[in-house]
Amino acid sequence: MSWWLEKIEGVDQKAKQAAIQRQQQLTKPTGSLGNLESIAIQLAALQGTVHPQVNRPWITIFAGDHGVMQENISAYPQAVTRQMLQNFATGGACISVIARQYLASLRVIDCGTVGEEYHYEGVETHCIRAGTANFAIESAMTEIECQQAMDLGRNSVEHAVQAQADIFVAGEMGIGNTCSASALACLLLDEDADQLTGVGTGIDAEKLKHKKQVIDQAIALHKSHIQDDPLKIMAAVGGLEITAMTGAYIRCAQLGLPMIIDGFISSVAALCAVRLNPDARNWMLFGHQSAEYGHRRILTELNAQSILSLNLRLGEGSGAGVALGVIQLACRLHNDMATFAEAAVSGDQV
Amino acid sequence: MSWWLEKIEGVDQKAKQAAIQRQQQLTKPTGSLGNLESIAIQLAALQGTVHPQVNRPWITIFAGDHGVMQENISAYPQAVTRQMLQNFATGGACISVIARQYLASLRVIDCGTVGEEYHYEGVETHCIRAGTANFAIESAMTEIECQQAMDLGRNSVEHAVQAQADIFVAGEMGIGNTCSASALACLLLDEDADQLTGVGTGIDAEKLKHKKQVIDQAIALHKSHIQDDPLKIMAAVGGLEITAMTGAYIRCAQLGLPMIIDGFISSVAALCAVRLNPDARNWMLFGHQSAEYGHRRILTELNAQSILSLNLRLGEGSGAGVALGVIQLACRLHNDMATFAEAAVSGDQV
Repeated sequence: MSWWLEKIEGVDQKAKQAAIQRQQQLTKPTGSLGNLESIAIQLAALQGTVHPQVNRPWITIFAGDHGVMQENISAYPQAVTRQMLQNFATGGACISVIARQYLASLRVIDCGTVGEEYHYEGVETHCIRAGTANFAIESAMTEIECQQAMDLGRNSVEHAVQAQADIFVAGEMGIGNTCSASALACLLLDEDADQLTGVGTGIDAEKLKHKKQVIDQAIALHKSHIQDDPLKIMAAVGGLEITAMTGAYIRCAQLGLPMIIDGFISSVAALCAVRLNPDARNWMLFGHQSAEYGHRRILTELNAQSILSLNLRLGEGSGAGVALGVIQLACRLHNDMATFAEAAVSGDQV
Repeated sequence: MSWWLEKIEGVDQKAKQAAIQRQQQLTKPTGSLGNLESIAIQLAALQGTVHPQVNRPWITIFAGDHGVMQENISAYPQAVTRQMLQNFATGGACISVIARQYLASLRVIDCGTVGEEYHYEGVETHCIRAGTANFAIESAMTEIECQQAMDLGRNSVEHAVQAQADIFVAGEMGIGNTCSASALACLLLDEDADQLTGVGTGIDAEKLKHKKQVIDQAIALHKSHIQDDPLKIMAAVGGLEITAMTGAYIRCAQLGLPMIIDGFISSVAALCAVRLNPDARNWMLFGHQSAEYGHRRILTELNAQSILSLNLRLGEGSGAGVALGVIQLACRLHNDMATFAEAAVSGDQV
């Protein structure tokens, strides 16, 4: 049996009930901390304790290049993927700043980019292939390569667990990867490109029309042989980094590590994970409602509500990273606020 | 001339333009940090620098009791106001935890609560009167008392500026104060209670109906003599703590200190401030869209969009406090991310 089909445990209902009771005893009107209460309660259930902690967050950025860039579907050249890897390593990228702000471990894994061999301090290179193939005319990767990408995600989560991480964020970098994510979403949800394709890093209306045509062409090419099998869909039109995220999400759930899902691409990877192993869903928090068109539909499919909605559309795990601060605060409030008894405040309503 | 009518300077357009240009040079697709970009740009304009900082946030909690509590309009007894003051002082309240998390200075000012003389370490007592009068049957306070409350707000902001605070949050504590805020909003906007009254700390449907009747009775009592004068409206149905917030907001704007407006009560105080001195509006950021009914209408009147929407309805400045973390992060990203040139990343679109 493939590792990603292994059993995912249920969450801790006893810890959840204890957390609900604690919230009712804190010095505030019942329910008045709104979503901050439900976040703390969910984390209590996931971490199996009435006092959930987000003190050792872990962020892994998975990177990969996309053969579909041959079809001219992005605002930026492919070389930016590698350039941004260096930017992660030297600390100048958005997610680098967020990791410093919230004292998160940041790992960067190149799952397969295009270019010469290279060495950047802080970037782990595990290139499965030099970017995917152009899924508009052939499969993006083989099923073996797809499984290798899943394994990269699994391994990163196992490192995080060994390091006693208490929450996991996966981010992505890969010029062209909203095109892949939209194609994945279309095949998973049996929609055409118009319903699930957005401007990504910022293409104009004409290029967006072209991007949708490329995706519709890919759907027509692959639809007959994917047999509603998420793994076949991922091999057909996925990305190495998106597939690694899917593997990471399933492994988080299997190892009982709560995760924060980021934006559009991350949510498509989460949808792949849930299609492969539905119990993974329980271990997910959703950080940010992206400005990318189609994200809301994916969230609806996952029955998910994002914590934040700040019109971000950057990727790199940045939306989940911003939410990390709110989740940390939700835990602090849950753990550190006084109870009515401790503070001698009247909790009885008149 | 009353101090609150003194001139408020415009924001720094040069710093704003420099901040806009900096955002365009950072290593991300243009506009992809969404509201985090506009927050940093607004703060740059307010602080008059291309590198805005939120390193020394200042939170003042203003407290006051409400004579309208005689009408049985709240879920909690009046004694909770004082009990919560002690809870702020000993660090067990929500805003105490938030202040520790974001390294904010926290001051607590009793503007007028009901009860014996007391001393809590960390609570400044400047009681103007032992709570307001019952505005359902008489004016809540005299215009002199109203001005004294405004002065308390002004003084607190001047302390913050002396301490080199770089952003200001006003919070409130006062059992019954959503009733006062709703009455203020009705008189300012010429509406009846049904449009602007919510459940506050959590009353049931029957009590909500009663609360609206009390407010409508107050509107009928005071409407003829308020002459659309915000100060007369505040004296008629306001609260000592709400009035102090209004004074604080105007002084922030006069001294060039950016402020984060909190939820319903805070926004009503902000509306009073803008009615007294319209240029105060430019210096306001809006932290959180409250779950309290009527808040959205106040925000619309102020042409404001909240940064967060987390279903909080607690008061104490808590929504603004949660937003503080997001605003700090927006500044860090703006200041610390690498530019395309620094990171040798291609910023040219294809």
